[in-house]
Amino acid sequence: MFLRRTPLQSLQQRSSFRLMSTSTTFKPFPTPSAKVSNSAKDVWSLINETAASVERESGQKVVNLGQGFFSYSPPDFAIQAAKESLDVAALNQYAPTRGLLNLRKAIADAYTPFFDRKLDPETEIVVTAGANEGMFAAFTGFLNQDDEVIVFEPFFDQYISNIQLPGGIVKYVPLHPPVDGSTRVASASDWTIDFEELEKTITPRTKMIVINSPQNPTGKVFSREELTKIGELAVKYNFIILSDEVYDRLYYTEFVRIATLSPAISRLTLTVGSAGKTFSATGWRVGWLIGHPELIKYVAAAHTRITFTVNTPLSNAVAKALEASQSNGYYEEQVASFRRKYSILTSVFDEIGLPYTVAEGGYFLLVNFAKVKLPEDYFFPDDVTVGRAKDFRLAYWLIKEFGVVAIPPTEFYTVENAHLAEDYLRFAVCKDDWMLEAAVEKLRGLKKYIE
Amino acid sequence: MFLRRTPLQSLQQRSSFRLMSTSTTFKPFPTPSAKVSNSAKDVWSLINETAASVERESGQKVVNLGQGFFSYSPPDFAIQAAKESLDVAALNQYAPTRGLLNLRKAIADAYTPFFDRKLDPETEIVVTAGANEGMFAAFTGFLNQDDEVIVFEPFFDQYISNIQLPGGIVKYVPLHPPVDGSTRVASASDWTIDFEELEKTITPRTKMIVINSPQNPTGKVFSREELTKIGELAVKYNFIILSDEVYDRLYYTEFVRIATLSPAISRLTLTVGSAGKTFSATGWRVGWLIGHPELIKYVAAAHTRITFTVNTPLSNAVAKALEASQSNGYYEEQVASFRRKYSILTSVFDEIGLPYTVAEGGYFLLVNFAKVKLPEDYFFPDDVTVGRAKDFRLAYWLIKEFGVVAIPPTEFYTVENAHLAEDYLRFAVCKDDWMLEAAVEKLRGLKKYIE
Repeated sequence: MFLRRTPLQSLQQRSSFRLMSTSTTFKPFPTPSAKVSNSAKDVWSLINETAASVERESGQKVVNLGQGFFSYSPPDFAIQAAKESLDVAALNQYAPTRGLLNLRKAIADAYTPFFDRKLDPETEIVVTAGANEGMFAAFTGFLNQDDEVIVFEPFFDQYISNIQLPGGIVKYVPLHPPVDGSTRVASASDWTIDFEELEKTITPRTKMIVINSPQNPTGKVFSREELTKIGELAVKYNFIILSDEVYDRLYYTEFVRIATLSPAISRLTLTVGSAGKTFSATGWRVGWLIGHPELIKYVAAAHTRITFTVNTPLSNAVAKALEASQSNGYYEEQVASFRRKYSILTSVFDEIGLPYTVAEGGYFLLVNFAKVKLPEDYFFPDDVTVGRAKDFRLAYWLIKEFGVVAIPPTEFYTVENAHLAEDYLRFAVCKDDWMLEAAVEKLRGLKKYIE
Repeated sequence: MFLRRTPLQSLQQRSSFRLMSTSTTFKPFPTPSAKVSNSAKDVWSLINETAASVERESGQKVVNLGQGFFSYSPPDFAIQAAKESLDVAALNQYAPTRGLLNLRKAIADAYTPFFDRKLDPETEIVVTAGANEGMFAAFTGFLNQDDEVIVFEPFFDQYISNIQLPGGIVKYVPLHPPVDGSTRVASASDWTIDFEELEKTITPRTKMIVINSPQNPTGKVFSREELTKIGELAVKYNFIILSDEVYDRLYYTEFVRIATLSPAISRLTLTVGSAGKTFSATGWRVGWLIGHPELIKYVAAAHTRITFTVNTPLSNAVAKALEASQSNGYYEEQVASFRRKYSILTSVFDEIGLPYTVAEGGYFLLVNFAKVKLPEDYFFPDDVTVGRAKDFRLAYWLIKEFGVVAIPPTEFYTVENAHLAEDYLRFAVCKDDWMLEAAVEKLRGLKKYIE
């Protein structure tokens, strides 16, 4: 739509250009890095394309509870702060590589009640281009070739490439699903760790472990006991704990931060936070890591090389939003709002009798579809069948027949362990209430496929 | 300033925490990646800290012509577009991993007149978190361990770590400075390439060459003849040309884009652009790469793993700013403004008789200080003497005695070739006219140190 008419001369040049193209034999393109050359279609593209095709064919909007972005705006006080930042010349230019100092101070202030000690904004915090780049910077800062990183399954899919790009090797440990998850509503705490299995995975090359609490996609909040055991292993074997706590303002049970358990555990922990998750602004790309100065300095060194700095106007807006939220009741409102969102969506599964995992934190709901019988001769394209578990067919069918988008969680598993989650689908509840209500209406139709 | 009073209980916990810290012997911290463990002080920190100390001691502001950020705001039409973006819910959430489609369309439209063909926003463009992350993504997308990348000296310092992080090896080729640069005003075109030297640097492991035109810090705009020779070498040996053209709207001579020279050269070229440089918004962190779909797809794959997406509201603002600038005369105004800025600053060097390199593009001025005699017993700290060339002492002395900040360009050279630039200092002219005029006043005092 933006393309202009090309003048005659240019067209002639283009023609000769084209002519040369077809008459010349070029060498093959230089080969890509082995680390990015696997171009299998990712789950997000697959699901989004399926959703788009349904909308195109039916002329009706689907209800997208797939990807974990918000269907609504960040709070007004954050938006206003962003607009005011844009009016300051210096806030449109490079921030310091570790982040705007006022943002680092606001982060220190926001976390001080949890960490129960004063955090030093100069040495203990680095602002990153989203939590994703922050975690990539942590891996880049610490992994030498073939160093190992332990990751629990299910995992957030970006962890894997973030570990592999700087040369790390992922070692997987499954969370064991609720044993009777196909027949009754379970708690996220029923997704459990086998600590013997975990300790056996540790080798002399173990450099880091990744934990995610509240967890995506299970909604599990790791218990104090679980975190203590993990922390003690980290101290015993001297590896770093990268604790992805991006959903740290949304928990519905006691939430413990591993960095607060003991000085020995604290000094080995990098805590990850996200303005995108905290302020419903996944498109702002502002995150942070908090940790001991001896760890943060290498994360900061890697971060400086990767993106140099983080966007300044939105960094400043996040600083102001964190300051305001210390006293404006925003976090409490968010928790109340998400409790309501969960109760809207779970109502339909209670009604039709599909069991789910009650989330302890975050904004995802895992629903167990074992009872749902897919029509026998239903047509599925290769993309959702070849090398894919049952959940991909479930997700495809749910979009096509019900106009509701969910994510198949075996994408967050190795092939070996994918069977653990093949009956589940993940729904994101970070959406307007009316969308969740529309999903409820549509999902009622599942009833007749339940045996 | 943001820290709150800690309640008594917390203080007690903190005390015991501290007690444990001092009474426990911890293991050494896990070792960082060898790629980031070199923590030598970078030139930016060194110069900024020196400037800050002068301001502290003298109580007077220095004139900072060091780092290449703008002292003023982006144009109003860009700021307004950013504010309007913030009012749209979806523009605060994740953009597609390759960038907002309307931004890719605006980029395609903006470059179509230069490339003389329609660019495909779907396959030929990827939006990145600044040009820096874009180049890092290109290196990450193509370099396997020990692949070689040719870089001209002087180089933008981030190139080096961006190549080394994914395992690449930098091969340096110097631009040869003007032979009589210490005695007369030269042209940036007098910084020349020895093509025999360049071709000798090519090996079977050569995967890429980086060019930067208009160049930082020399202001050189590579000529059609030079680009053709470089392009022919790339075709002959089948390596990728990463053409950093972030100053592509600021040129004062004929500016040729290497991607436009022939189909064979075009298909091997990745062109780098920057909204930060184009719209005086270095803090927005929006850049892009343009190239053949077979190259872009691997850059996009790496980019997705590194930062996932680019901040959405400022991406949308850049789309609107690019659209508006197709017809509002902004680029022409910018060129006129920078011609004026150069003439303000060069006037003092003409007056006192210090020769410089007349820039053909960009916003830096290289001034030759060979004629300046530093006071013999002047005190210099170790940071600017140990392992540093004369330009570091010149820069330090200029800040301390004249209150003007410039950058020592040997930072952009290997130790072996640093002597080529040790008489030069780099001044950034992307500053308000009054700042440049203030610098002129201050620099007049150099006269008495010229022999």
